[in-house]
Amino acid sequence: MSDRSLLVVVLAAGEGTRMASRLPKVLHKVAGRTMLHHVLDAARAAGATRTAVVVGPGREDVAAEAMRIVPDAEVFVQTERLGTAHAVLAARPALAAGADDVLVVYADTPLIRPETLGLLRAPLAAGAAVAALGFVPDDPTGYGRLVTHGDALVAIREEKDASAAEKEIRLCNAGLMALSGAQALPLLERIGNANAKGEYYLTDAVEIARAAGLTAVAAEAEADEVAGVNSRVQLAEAEAILQRRLRLAAMAGGATLVAPETVFFSADTVLGRDVIVEPHVVFGPGVSVGDDVVIHSFCHLEGARLAAGVSIGPYARLRPGTQLDAGVRIGNFVETKAAHIESGAKVNHLSYVGDAHVGANANLGAGTITCNYDGFAKYRTEIGAGAFIGVNSALVAPVTIGEGAYVGTGAVITADVPADALAVARSRQVVKEGWAKAFREKRAKPKA
Amino acid sequence: MSDRSLLVVVLAAGEGTRMASRLPKVLHKVAGRTMLHHVLDAARAAGATRTAVVVGPGREDVAAEAMRIVPDAEVFVQTERLGTAHAVLAARPALAAGADDVLVVYADTPLIRPETLGLLRAPLAAGAAVAALGFVPDDPTGYGRLVTHGDALVAIREEKDASAAEKEIRLCNAGLMALSGAQALPLLERIGNANAKGEYYLTDAVEIARAAGLTAVAAEAEADEVAGVNSRVQLAEAEAILQRRLRLAAMAGGATLVAPETVFFSADTVLGRDVIVEPHVVFGPGVSVGDDVVIHSFCHLEGARLAAGVSIGPYARLRPGTQLDAGVRIGNFVETKAAHIESGAKVNHLSYVGDAHVGANANLGAGTITCNYDGFAKYRTEIGAGAFIGVNSALVAPVTIGEGAYVGTGAVITADVPADALAVARSRQVVKEGWAKAFREKRAKPKA
Amino acid sequence: MSDRSLLVVVLAAGEGTRMASRLPKVLHKVAGRTMLHHVLDAARAAGATRTAVVVGPGREDVAAEAMRIVPDAEVFVQTERLGTAHAVLAARPALAAGADDVLVVYADTPLIRPETLGLLRAPLAAGAAVAALGFVPDDPTGYGRLVTHGDALVAIREEKDASAAEKEIRLCNAGLMALSGAQALPLLERIGNANAKGEYYLTDAVEIARAAGLTAVAAEAEADEVAGVNSRVQLAEAEAILQRRLRLAAMAGGATLVAPETVFFSADTVLGRDVIVEPHVVFGPGVSVGDDVVIHSFCHLEGARLAAGVSIGPYARLRPGTQLDAGVRIGNFVETKAAHIESGAKVNHLSYVGDAHVGANANLGAGTITCNYDGFAKYRTEIGAGAFIGVNSALVAPVTIGEGAYVGTGAVITADVPADALAVARSRQVVKEGWAKAFREKRAKPKA
Repeated sequence: MSDRSLLVVVLAAGEGTRMASRLPKVLHKVAGRTMLHHVLDAARAAGATRTAVVVGPGREDVAAEAMRIVPDAEVFVQTERLGTAHAVLAARPALAAGADDVLVVYADTPLIRPETLGLLRAPLAAGAAVAALGFVPDDPTGYGRLVTHGDALVAIREEKDASAAEKEIRLCNAGLMALSGAQALPLLERIGNANAKGEYYLTDAVEIARAAGLTAVAAEAEADEVAGVNSRVQLAEAEAILQRRLRLAAMAGGATLVAPETVFFSADTVLGRDVIVEPHVVFGPGVSVGDDVVIHSFCHLEGARLAAGVSIGPYARLRPGTQLDAGVRIGNFVETKAAHIESGAKVNHLSYVGDAHVGANANLGAGTITCNYDGFAKYRTEIGAGAFIGVNSALVAPVTIGEGAYVGTGAVITADVPADALAVARSRQVVKEGWAKAFREKRAKPKA
Repeated sequence: MSDRSLLVVVLAAGEGTRMASRLPKVLHKVAGRTMLHHVLDAARAAGATRTAVVVGPGREDVAAEAMRIVPDAEVFVQTERLGTAHAVLAARPALAAGADDVLVVYADTPLIRPETLGLLRAPLAAGAAVAALGFVPDDPTGYGRLVTHGDALVAIREEKDASAAEKEIRLCNAGLMALSGAQALPLLERIGNANAKGEYYLTDAVEIARAAGLTAVAAEAEADEVAGVNSRVQLAEAEAILQRRLRLAAMAGGATLVAPETVFFSADTVLGRDVIVEPHVVFGPGVSVGDDVVIHSFCHLEGARLAAGVSIGPYARLRPGTQLDAGVRIGNFVETKAAHIESGAKVNHLSYVGDAHVGANANLGAGTITCNYDGFAKYRTEIGAGAFIGVNSALVAPVTIGEGAYVGTGAVITADVPADALAVARSRQVVKEGWAKAFREKRAKPKA
Repeated sequence: MSDRSLLVVVLAAGEGTRMASRLPKVLHKVAGRTMLHHVLDAARAAGATRTAVVVGPGREDVAAEAMRIVPDAEVFVQTERLGTAHAVLAARPALAAGADDVLVVYADTPLIRPETLGLLRAPLAAGAAVAALGFVPDDPTGYGRLVTHGDALVAIREEKDASAAEKEIRLCNAGLMALSGAQALPLLERIGNANAKGEYYLTDAVEIARAAGLTAVAAEAEADEVAGVNSRVQLAEAEAILQRRLRLAAMAGGATLVAPETVFFSADTVLGRDVIVEPHVVFGPGVSVGDDVVIHSFCHLEGARLAAGVSIGPYARLRPGTQLDAGVRIGNFVETKAAHIESGAKVNHLSYVGDAHVGANANLGAGTITCNYDGFAKYRTEIGAGAFIGVNSALVAPVTIGEGAYVGTGAVITADVPADALAVARSRQVVKEGWAKAFREKRAKPKA
């Protein structure tokens, strides 16, 4: 990583009216994270030493998300919307404080990769004053073109101003820009608004730099990483691109995805080697999965750590705070939350295990439920190693089941059970001969 | 909408042998509705004042579906299959009764949009006798071509009869046709069967009209809306096209579909603004969803109304008659049916709530089940506002739990519980020290 | 089928390092079967009378899988990796034993169809000594080309050795080869290793045969059936191709797949006519489904037989040994295993039915659980025809519920219930007036 200081200016003031949402655009999520979060992560990974975020008026929610991710982010408000250069100048104090390099990025371009930011920034160290990021779209219609001459970037030409020859250029303007820290403010301040819309365009920095005898160059990004998100359809497209990346990475790392297109990851999902993921699985944030784990279809995981050799599902729902040790088996229609389940334990059917610790090799029967809530507070359940919990048992927390203890079928357990003991709480079975026949005959009788 | 009267003739007599089905082709469903239903809806939305449906012999099921959707539909039987013009003439009484405009549509073309029917019909008001609907397929091979000259439609030419120049025409015959009400019967009656198959082709109406000095014109549809369904593969393709339309409409309306390709709507699904739908969700018919609702993965909804701020799933199954008021939370492995759940109430885990009314802010513990069926009839359960139902409780309907009442864990409740009371029905826990150890030792002993 | 004897040599010694797996490549699965299994099945269906499998050193697991599928398969170890001809010669004893025809196939090409193997083999009966399998890829770059002259195959030319004209050839080498049984060994023994890598290439057999005055020809496969699998991404691609085949076959057979791309079959899944499969369904191995069955969304089936008119799901999980007779209804969040459920019986909600027999028209209430396991062994539950099992009942096996018997809500049944009797095991409901109100007030009181 470079030892040059880097100020990243994140433009996050867009209104996003096409999202048709009360939520500001940059707080919409892709792969479980806000778009702003993705961009701030990319900036950090690219070596940002300072971060300035430009938000719209009254957007405390955007500012809060920025500072959640980058606690020392500096937030600036763009009070009027007068163009991209104007937006960057909202961060004037940060620019004035100085940095070797300045990067201007957009919070609604969540797929930008740190490597690409590195490529964009690299020419500054070699003396360039400005570097603009280009990409080659399938159809360049409507995009500004990066006009180059040899290595030099001559101008960024809006399509309406482009000559016929310039319209043939395939390299289009992605919007992101790197500026020499020393030149950033002088260049930005010379950008005028003598154009149809009366706005200050960041793209003008190229020609201004050239006129001042400074160097401008272009870098190139993949088309799919600079796609801006302005609508819910584009949000879904960004999600799809990111999911493809995550799926390919999982497979390259030695996981089998039987049907990759039906598996959804979060940006932070970690999968081990020889993991098998069956069709239709959803990973929320905060999941790490060890080697040789099998995740059957229709599982939903969030905030869970699975050690080697675990098998879950189908229809397992692991909620935050779930920790499954080696070889644990979670079966169908089972929910876990804030539960540490030790190696070899089994919870195979129709159970809820919340706020609990389950010892090694314990076996929880179908319909086992930890009663962790009394309407006011949550309490913990302790189940000892090797314990056997009968079907349809309710464990009323706080309660401890000792090691090797048995809980009888259908019990409501309200007091601790000693190790190796049996606890039962059940009514005696009573049989009434012929009752069912009589009941049917009575019920089947037509009403008078 | 036009104030001209409109007779829509729906051809629904196709045998559909390629479907390999006992069900008539037009009763197969797309997005939760029969194909016939879709076409009748489009006809109604396009302003149909009368509807004639032409069915095959013995197809009372098709007739019944038509009259279920359009109660005053007139049903005619085509006893022999002698071509499209012959099929339309099966509805001769309807034609003879007169209408300003006549539209001929096909019940196996379920994707046709009302707007397109409007386009097709519009020339009649301007004096045209015939308007044929065209579309531009990716590959025109095999389709009849719409031969035009200026604004006039000259002929519909079968490919085998087409000249080399005519084969270059991209606009192909979709089959749908608009006919002036005054000219419909005279034109249809002049169509002959002097062709290889000896059938009466509706397409001949164009040249007959031209020869009579009348005007024929063409209208154009999107290729994907005139796709006919003749096989299960084409049925799946039609479903896919319609699902894409529904997904785009949902996103344009301000809903986030994280993975649109995994979400399946019914034709009548209504989604509010800032709704979030996670991957893998299925909407059956009759669902409306308010603003700010979150639908987690693996949910299945049918006949349910969700008010603003509701959150369901993952793995929530809402069945018909479910009404969730503002802020209700339905969790995992929960089924509701004919249940009105008032604002703020929670049913978070492994429960069945059927034929029930749940008051505001009530909390139903994991494993709560309403016993609504005794083998003969269904009964209702009333749960008062603020009630707290313990884990693994069975509420044997008819029964009422008063406001603010508590039901103890594992209770079978057979009698009403007063407001603010506690009801318990539970055996005392008994512990047998050392029993489990002894049991294990006995069981582990090898059999002699 | 030909009455000529056929030796199939299956090359299964590839290391598969790009899989990043501890499991040998050919044991990875596609549509529920190992790749090796698919190829052995294709060989068998193509008429193999003897099967030789060439494995890498120490690969007892591959040998075991081969013999699981083809018990009399002969397994040979390729101790060094010196090229494809060298690999085939590892099976020299099998070749020396003689066969009319020899086919060389690859265990990492799981999509090859028996019909194509038949095409490849056919020229041998007409006197050819060698037949090579070609295919036409979208982009031939990197593939060897099949150089033909009239009907004759002249050579298989590696791209680097190809002339400009040869590079224009679209038919590329798939690797599979048929050899006359009489000529196989002589040809293979004449293949040398005078090439850059010093390996023995099977492709050289073509030119050697030609030089000896023997006939070589080419056969053609579909591009998608000769795709080799070398990475997890290619494994997923093979799965996708096979799933498309299976979906198309299901639809052609008269099943409706509402969203084919979300339904996953095993290679051996059998579906009847007028079966409806909703979105998001997974079929494991060993499932057969009768006519008119409805499989709702989110079902998972494995080793299950469903008779006509059955309806399952959503969220039904059928495990091995499940047999559902005509008209059975399995509802949501229900798991069955080793369970025979007779006609008309219903298990609609939140139940586990394992190691059980359920008589006709029985009704199992929500939360019914068969307790089939005591920590040591499994036991069976018998439920008679017409029995009615109340909600939240636990049936502790071994136990029999007689025909027409009723089991009361919340019962734990440990002893047999006679026919037509009622069995209850429940505590009396006790109400404590005002308790809940007092509890809330106490709990809500701020701690001092």
